[in-house]
Amino acid sequence: MQINFWNKQIETASRDEINDIQLRRLKNIVKQAYKSEFYKKKFHKAGIESPEDIKTLEDIQKFPFTTKNDLRQNYPAGLLASDFDDVVRIHSSSGTTGVPTVIYLSGEDMDCWTDLVARSLVATGCTKSDVFQNMMTYGLFTGGLGLHYGAERVGMAVLPIGGGNTIRQVRYMQDFNTTTLHITPSYLLHIYGKLDDFNTKIEDLSLKRAITGAEPHTEQTRKKLEELYNMPCYNSYGLSEMNGPGVAFECVYRNGMHIWEDGFIAEIINPETGEVLPDGEKGELVLTNLTRTAMPLLRYRTRDLCHIYDSDCPCGRTHRRLSRIMGRTDDMMIINGVNVFPSQIEEVVMNIPEVGTNYQIVLTKKGAIDKLIVKVEIYSKMFSGDASQLDSLNRKICEELKASIFVNPVVQIHEPGTLPTFEGKAKRVIDMREEI
Amino acid sequence: MQINFWNKQIETASRDEINDIQLRRLKNIVKQAYKSEFYKKKFHKAGIESPEDIKTLEDIQKFPFTTKNDLRQNYPAGLLASDFDDVVRIHSSSGTTGVPTVIYLSGEDMDCWTDLVARSLVATGCTKSDVFQNMMTYGLFTGGLGLHYGAERVGMAVLPIGGGNTIRQVRYMQDFNTTTLHITPSYLLHIYGKLDDFNTKIEDLSLKRAITGAEPHTEQTRKKLEELYNMPCYNSYGLSEMNGPGVAFECVYRNGMHIWEDGFIAEIINPETGEVLPDGEKGELVLTNLTRTAMPLLRYRTRDLCHIYDSDCPCGRTHRRLSRIMGRTDDMMIINGVNVFPSQIEEVVMNIPEVGTNYQIVLTKKGAIDKLIVKVEIYSKMFSGDASQLDSLNRKICEELKASIFVNPVVQIHEPGTLPTFEGKAKRVIDMREEI
Repeated sequence: MQINFWNKQIETASRDEINDIQLRRLKNIVKQAYKSEFYKKKFHKAGIESPEDIKTLEDIQKFPFTTKNDLRQNYPAGLLASDFDDVVRIHSSSGTTGVPTVIYLSGEDMDCWTDLVARSLVATGCTKSDVFQNMMTYGLFTGGLGLHYGAERVGMAVLPIGGGNTIRQVRYMQDFNTTTLHITPSYLLHIYGKLDDFNTKIEDLSLKRAITGAEPHTEQTRKKLEELYNMPCYNSYGLSEMNGPGVAFECVYRNGMHIWEDGFIAEIINPETGEVLPDGEKGELVLTNLTRTAMPLLRYRTRDLCHIYDSDCPCGRTHRRLSRIMGRTDDMMIINGVNVFPSQIEEVVMNIPEVGTNYQIVLTKKGAIDKLIVKVEIYSKMFSGDASQLDSLNRKICEELKASIFVNPVVQIHEPGTLPTFEGKAKRVIDMREEI
Repeated sequence: MQINFWNKQIETASRDEINDIQLRRLKNIVKQAYKSEFYKKKFHKAGIESPEDIKTLEDIQKFPFTTKNDLRQNYPAGLLASDFDDVVRIHSSSGTTGVPTVIYLSGEDMDCWTDLVARSLVATGCTKSDVFQNMMTYGLFTGGLGLHYGAERVGMAVLPIGGGNTIRQVRYMQDFNTTTLHITPSYLLHIYGKLDDFNTKIEDLSLKRAITGAEPHTEQTRKKLEELYNMPCYNSYGLSEMNGPGVAFECVYRNGMHIWEDGFIAEIINPETGEVLPDGEKGELVLTNLTRTAMPLLRYRTRDLCHIYDSDCPCGRTHRRLSRIMGRTDDMMIINGVNVFPSQIEEVVMNIPEVGTNYQIVLTKKGAIDKLIVKVEIYSKMFSGDASQLDSLNRKICEELKASIFVNPVVQIHEPGTLPTFEGKAKRVIDMREEI
């Protein structure tokens, strides 16, 4: 397999070299964080006398965690650590669920971010000869502009088309010989169902790979996409609080996402106790941004559940790998007292060959009892046969779900194209329990 | 008045120096254009033997014009003059009115473009201490990303919020002490009417200036905006075929837009005969992009009607100035045989103090007769008084319109907030004559 590097020296550095970089940068960033109102107070409260207290990488554990709530309570500028004149970019969450969270970046910070995104794209095989159709929303959402800047730095031809308008998306894939898509997995699934309408075949396109992001999705969904499109789909990890995309990215082996450890310190903790867990154990990911001077974030609790692989990767990169995110602490549904993650349901349904490209999870309540309804689209050929076939398929899906999630679902089978579709982030879970 | 420069040497170069730069760059770009299929054929057809035929700037007149139709007929890549590997950006018109037009840029082209936009922003007084709220759509539309890149290069704090969501726009103006807006004039008018609803006063904001673009608007609209917001509103000129924004921009004197003549050669022609007109005479603007190597465009007919000022500007910049665009050859309405530009109507209504922040032009047909309806919103205090006041205001608007456009309109007076509003480009003219 062809392995490309953006910065081979850093990407294949020894563990000692990585530790050295991390320790040096950690000392600097702690010093920088001290310039913000928020961290000055927080350090003081935690009894940390001075940023010089950092002697080893383990000393990071002396610092308290930072949470999303801290960001909200200190809106808009409590975490700003540099002179406002140095800020060149402000990103913000939409604030639909409360006070927005804001991120500030200096010119240097933008440069570091862009470099990590460029490195990530090259790890998936992208080169300057590629055409990059960026189907993510541009604007405050960091996924769109983040990948845009990285792809431009690689020298790819960037088509900043944004989301939506499927007929134009497919037309431009043909007209500009697009090789690389940046897209949500649900939209990529949706487009497949539309190709027939546009008289387009996969073979008419020049697609080589998709970067799928902005939405949690399972390995089963990835496999389905890779089969449908006959190309690799790359998983990546990022969050706006850590700039956006470019925190961790898969290489061509697609066996976990390399965390760019010269840019971030990753810890896995027990979300209940805060205790740091060893590699391989599942827990909540905690990240420290080592280079963002305008707004350092130390030990930020991502609420994402995953683990870190400690094995070597055949690509030669030494940066440890993150597992697929298994759910967010706040995505978890409690159904009649049982904890269920939407990803567990997706895993089951996407693994059943008769299931098409769309599904939906609906929660309702009947008296005191929660009811879980799983709606799935089935390939149309199933509908022309014997109705008893549909019944037995329904039973099969029910049983497989129950075996996995320990909750008895109602499964509803739908014809293709009848469930709601999404040209951006999908909304898979409809929880109507509180409304009832 | 404080005059800032981005590149003083170029911006205040003597006419001889500008001519030297233009001639040198013209020779290069003609050589480069020759590498595209389209220009090779076109030059050959026009009897131009070799790019070396360019000896003086006047020799540009030997070249044939390029039109929008040429771009469409040679979609997608007939005008590409460089290796596709060098392309880092593809922009395209929406293609809603036919085949899309496409623009390719290399990394170097992006750099030149960004530099001209940075220069433009500095000419309006922007510095790295400013906060730039970019309320234009991001994506294939060049206005959004174009100004974004320029503002970032100046070192402004860029808030890439995009269009729409007025309540959030106003909130962010307050929370981030926004000083500079990039916005369509119609949306800026619309927001003014909303400030009361949000309990916000102009004095609560830190606004210093607005860059108003993406929509033709009149001097009367500018004056109205400047009075309402108590800040200067800058007019600029660009078109996606010439990268986008950054072709010509006003300086702090706001007396015409400096054409960046090191980047473009501007000619004014008689749109009927193609004859080149002297400075001061009104005609169609024709532009040659001097630096875009991935896709040179020579003598491109913009269809925009304007003239060039030949007087000196007190700011010290020597680059000649473009008048406000007086209309597009294809915007012109023919009403019962009379040529009328929408801008003429806007000029009249926005000059009437009782008229509020919104208006609309509707064309219908009664038998063979065209009917022009002008709908205007009036400030609410007018509705509480005597009805005869409204009648006399209606008559006044009718008369002033008729005196200006030689067509007898029907004027309809509306309460504030009742005409359709726009959070992006306004659609002012509704022509229903063909549907009837």
